[in-house]
Amino acid sequence: MYGITPANGIEKAYDLDAVAIVPTKRGRDIKDVDLSWKIDALTLDFPLIAAPMDSIMSPATVIEMGRLGGLGVLNLEGLWTRYVDPAKHFEKLATITDEIDAVKLMQKLYAAPIKAELIDQRLAEIHDAGVPFAAALSPKTVREFAPHVEKSGADFLVITGTSVSAQYVSETQDALDMKELIHSLDVPVIVGGSVDYYTALNLMRAGAVGILVGFGGGARQATRDVLGIEVPMASAISGAAEARSDYLDESGGRYVAVIADGGITGSGDIAKALACGADAAMVGVPLARASQAPGKGYHWGREAWHPTLVRGLRQQVTTCASLEEILLGPSVVADGSMNLVGALRRTLASTGYTTIKSFQKAKLILV
Amino acid sequence: MYGITPANGIEKAYDLDAVAIVPTKRGRDIKDVDLSWKIDALTLDFPLIAAPMDSIMSPATVIEMGRLGGLGVLNLEGLWTRYVDPAKHFEKLATITDEIDAVKLMQKLYAAPIKAELIDQRLAEIHDAGVPFAAALSPKTVREFAPHVEKSGADFLVITGTSVSAQYVSETQDALDMKELIHSLDVPVIVGGSVDYYTALNLMRAGAVGILVGFGGGARQATRDVLGIEVPMASAISGAAEARSDYLDESGGRYVAVIADGGITGSGDIAKALACGADAAMVGVPLARASQAPGKGYHWGREAWHPTLVRGLRQQVTTCASLEEILLGPSVVADGSMNLVGALRRTLASTGYTTIKSFQKAKLILV
Amino acid sequence: MYGITPANGIEKAYDLDAVAIVPTKRGRDIKDVDLSWKIDALTLDFPLIAAPMDSIMSPATVIEMGRLGGLGVLNLEGLWTRYVDPAKHFEKLATITDEIDAVKLMQKLYAAPIKAELIDQRLAEIHDAGVPFAAALSPKTVREFAPHVEKSGADFLVITGTSVSAQYVSETQDALDMKELIHSLDVPVIVGGSVDYYTALNLMRAGAVGILVGFGGGARQATRDVLGIEVPMASAISGAAEARSDYLDESGGRYVAVIADGGITGSGDIAKALACGADAAMVGVPLARASQAPGKGYHWGREAWHPTLVRGLRQQVTTCASLEEILLGPSVVADGSMNLVGALRRTLASTGYTTIKSFQKAKLILV
Amino acid sequence: MYGITPANGIEKAYDLDAVAIVPTKRGRDIKDVDLSWKIDALTLDFPLIAAPMDSIMSPATVIEMGRLGGLGVLNLEGLWTRYVDPAKHFEKLATITDEIDAVKLMQKLYAAPIKAELIDQRLAEIHDAGVPFAAALSPKTVREFAPHVEKSGADFLVITGTSVSAQYVSETQDALDMKELIHSLDVPVIVGGSVDYYTALNLMRAGAVGILVGFGGGARQATRDVLGIEVPMASAISGAAEARSDYLDESGGRYVAVIADGGITGSGDIAKALACGADAAMVGVPLARASQAPGKGYHWGREAWHPTLVRGLRQQVTTCASLEEILLGPSVVADGSMNLVGALRRTLASTGYTTIKSFQKAKLILV
Repeated sequence: MYGITPANGIEKAYDLDAVAIVPTKRGRDIKDVDLSWKIDALTLDFPLIAAPMDSIMSPATVIEMGRLGGLGVLNLEGLWTRYVDPAKHFEKLATITDEIDAVKLMQKLYAAPIKAELIDQRLAEIHDAGVPFAAALSPKTVREFAPHVEKSGADFLVITGTSVSAQYVSETQDALDMKELIHSLDVPVIVGGSVDYYTALNLMRAGAVGILVGFGGGARQATRDVLGIEVPMASAISGAAEARSDYLDESGGRYVAVIADGGITGSGDIAKALACGADAAMVGVPLARASQAPGKGYHWGREAWHPTLVRGLRQQVTTCASLEEILLGPSVVADGSMNLVGALRRTLASTGYTTIKSFQKAKLILV
Repeated sequence: MYGITPANGIEKAYDLDAVAIVPTKRGRDIKDVDLSWKIDALTLDFPLIAAPMDSIMSPATVIEMGRLGGLGVLNLEGLWTRYVDPAKHFEKLATITDEIDAVKLMQKLYAAPIKAELIDQRLAEIHDAGVPFAAALSPKTVREFAPHVEKSGADFLVITGTSVSAQYVSETQDALDMKELIHSLDVPVIVGGSVDYYTALNLMRAGAVGILVGFGGGARQATRDVLGIEVPMASAISGAAEARSDYLDESGGRYVAVIADGGITGSGDIAKALACGADAAMVGVPLARASQAPGKGYHWGREAWHPTLVRGLRQQVTTCASLEEILLGPSVVADGSMNLVGALRRTLASTGYTTIKSFQKAKLILV
Repeated sequence: MYGITPANGIEKAYDLDAVAIVPTKRGRDIKDVDLSWKIDALTLDFPLIAAPMDSIMSPATVIEMGRLGGLGVLNLEGLWTRYVDPAKHFEKLATITDEIDAVKLMQKLYAAPIKAELIDQRLAEIHDAGVPFAAALSPKTVREFAPHVEKSGADFLVITGTSVSAQYVSETQDALDMKELIHSLDVPVIVGGSVDYYTALNLMRAGAVGILVGFGGGARQATRDVLGIEVPMASAISGAAEARSDYLDESGGRYVAVIADGGITGSGDIAKALACGADAAMVGVPLARASQAPGKGYHWGREAWHPTLVRGLRQQVTTCASLEEILLGPSVVADGSMNLVGALRRTLASTGYTTIKSFQKAKLILV
Repeated sequence: MYGITPANGIEKAYDLDAVAIVPTKRGRDIKDVDLSWKIDALTLDFPLIAAPMDSIMSPATVIEMGRLGGLGVLNLEGLWTRYVDPAKHFEKLATITDEIDAVKLMQKLYAAPIKAELIDQRLAEIHDAGVPFAAALSPKTVREFAPHVEKSGADFLVITGTSVSAQYVSETQDALDMKELIHSLDVPVIVGGSVDYYTALNLMRAGAVGILVGFGGGARQATRDVLGIEVPMASAISGAAEARSDYLDESGGRYVAVIADGGITGSGDIAKALACGADAAMVGVPLARASQAPGKGYHWGREAWHPTLVRGLRQQVTTCASLEEILLGPSVVADGSMNLVGALRRTLASTGYTTIKSFQKAKLILV
């Protein structure tokens, strides 16, 4: 009587909170756990990438992220590349508690043009620190500014649209052919966001060294409310992991990293994302709680300052610890917001795994 | 052991919040998106119809709705056709915060007789503005007042009962044969509400140019609590869309518009309703927030003033923006309540569609 | 890997809030709806029975219930048969807001012995009013006091245990054979509570003229929390309705009334219970809101004063209207708490039915 | 399109609140119910074991638990074996309301070394009382301190890791072979925690006389949030019960007790755990409410004071009654927190069982 049924091919998709890991193997010593992972030529100590959001990533925090063993990504369309001295604007924003006032100020601040020389300057500052790093552009600006990333020595260019970009950009006269673009660049590209097996496979075939699964975490609720679009992450990650495996065969050995980008609220979600098949997780809100976070108690993505269709919320967060404590501990809270790396190490040990690659086959259940 | 199981044919039905749209095609340029749609001979700029509820539709707002590109519908059984000057009554109602007092006042106000000359006068005022418009009657009054709609130049007569009218009216001595009625009228008829494939098909066969799916949004919770009746919208819309397709074949080419009428709380719901197969959505509560809304911060349907069985709530809403901003933006909030049309345009672009007809086949998942 | 799965025969059972009625037939005129129903030789105007709970049923309210067209049931193990003047105890109880103090007072009040002469006196008072009525006893006291019910002229004896009595009483030396008991009595028996097809069938075979489905509404949450026992009502009612049908065949025409006794919080639940197959509903909390209710703002069942294992809560309710208004309207609220009979009549009309027997086949969905 | 589906072998697992017991047999007299159970050579009056947590088990409460007919377990890694006079530390902890301060104090208190002579002294004190008792060690300390348990006269040694230990300990140079260990000890071993059929079977084969199912109740939410690990108890218990049955065959008659250890919040959960197949339940939070509980209004497990990855919460509880009243009643509340044994007895009687072994086959439904 009704068209909407699983019987008619309308699949049920699951978010990370609908799955859980079950330990079914013998436990391993936590000291035997090795969380290192490889993306393209780079090996990193642990599988966490900081999201390219102004509220968490400044040149200084990108450097700190790299120094601690992770990967930071600078948003090249943020305040750091629009203003010589963005600090005062962050300061001002943090004093505004009314959300509509904040939106209006953000819309104004982000209307300033991106300056190529500031891109160069910010990336040089990071590069000088000698840590791995990445820089992010949207499809709209990538042709114009990618050359600056190429020459900066960045390890990766991250191409990610607004929260709901599909896998290719729009098909108007200035349409972007992702495959052509990636092959024309001298810097390895991480691109997103995939939503299932097919979109992931297409992005892999375009030549990316890593693909983002999902549309980022900052705007999930708003994306659902405003656009009706939703990507349940457990399903999307597992679909991408299947695509990775098939593409490995198809390409004769190219392994493309699958990076969960959305719905990661704490260490439990990171573990689940990896158990669903991700190689790494892109993290936002947990890092916004760092004492060094530029957002100073607020967290927002580019959806929060869209000039005509705001579809992400500026989120208030509690500053609780240093970036190092949030990533590496020790933790004095039991909610998954601190010692993200230590918690992941503990999950692997407890469930009987010593590497991420083996942990990607951990037993999952629906809860 | 139990009779109530899907195995026994008790189907699971889904509401709009149980489904989501997944973008699986390449994104399209938002400028390429065309939201126009056709119902009978009329083409409208975007697929939103304002619900015939006193709290949102006055002659002035029907005109404004039409001017902006949508379709407004005047409730011909409301205060505008019972009182020469209803403004003072709206004013008074808005000052009463106690809900039972408000119900009692509404019961009193709506007990006044409907005056044919006021119908003529209100419809003439709208017609003079030169915009498309419609007028609504219930099965109870349609025989008496339909001639006034016919002569008014209205584009459509909307026939919709109390929140839970079935597809035909009661079978007493004054039973209404919908088919006979529709064929006897000189104005195209939109009629509701359908709940599934079969009820939709019957309404199409009766000759309607558009059918309403659902019973209106204002009384959904109360209808469930008071009557035990519920129409999960995603299932109901998809059933009606199937009926539309079968009726198109059966009738040799008559395309009847399917209009979602219930559960539309913001732009995300509009997108989902269309992705389930609707041609347009009838919108209530989002428009009650307009500064021009006659309800002045309150929203109610005809169920709220039933003389013996109140089964809809007068709902308090926050006045937030002009009707134009709510429909066309810009939006400064991330909850789907503003820039309804812009959000829908964005959803189509993001998921890879440029027309409503193609978007009706967007990929849905159960979440 | 796990034993608890539907595949292993662990059935999913549904409560009333998991189902809804869908109107798929043409609407009927509300004036054509006839809510009368028959149990044994008695025909009643509408299918509502007041639960035998002290907080709602006094001799006076049993009479009022009958006068209005329903059926009242006096609890013969309550304060009315333990005290010559219980009014002062009700008065006192209503002044105690601390729940543990209230439990202790109730335990003390209900420790007083039941007096046979008070049973006679209360039932005579009701009988003199000339309305239909019933009286309730538990399995523990039924042998002792049933003769008083027999001679009182009561239309029915209701036998219902504590909130979780099974279909037969305990098997100790004083075990009660329900079949033998029912056949030995001169008054028709309504007995409960059934939980599925088989328990319902057994009670029918024992000779009851009506069976209660469920364990009463007052203690559902507590029964779950304290005992781990739960009877999802939609499933239980539909199972009992199947049993009724099979027993009708088996017995060569004996029709046993199925009465939903639990989870009835308002008019929507009554409609759903009937659509699941019930002939009538036993109602508690909605009647506790009557101005005449002895509970004076509180509602409790016998589980609330158990001497060693309290497993029902005394519940605070808002006194809102007369018993007549609650049953027959008019209603000025939209939550299903008033005009229970009018709402049920409206549901039948809206969904296209004019009798309870036909409405028992209304289309249900899982929501 | 997605990998995460039941069709791909991702099983749905159920927690205790997703199941309920349905009474389908005739009720039994509560006086006929016998709750005694046997584990190894010991017969106990009722199937409740107090969890080895400092907040509930002191030598005095272990003795009281045994005196009342249950089994108490002293945590040998707690404050009682680290301090000659722990009372002042409990006192101090109870005055700290800030949770992070409490964590820091606990981390400091539990950093003191475990003293063998205090183990001997505490166990001797309990042994002198002449009641059954057990003592708990983690895999980390079991080799060092098990000899003290052996010589103490304890009925059982409980080996249980941090909240998420797998069935065997880590495989470093000092790996623990559970089978070898158990066979080398002179005291019967209860070990945990199993998560499904296979992990339960492995623990049985290792020689345990009882296995714990789950990871303890105190840290369930935190384990999910911090580690992404979750063991839905209804599924885990029923899996273990199946393993018990298969192992009984395989071993030619060895019956290993299955003890639910997690998610037991009140008497309803105890009943459900047994109906899922458990022989007994390990209880934490309900006993923390006893007036004798050392936690003085707080409850915590060893996860709450981990030095680098806190993953359990210190929980505030309301002190409400004596240990005896909580276990044996009478109860004056309806939430399952008092008269745990009486409630279980009532559940068996109401659902028609007189022994735990038969009740393990009670009918369950999914709700």
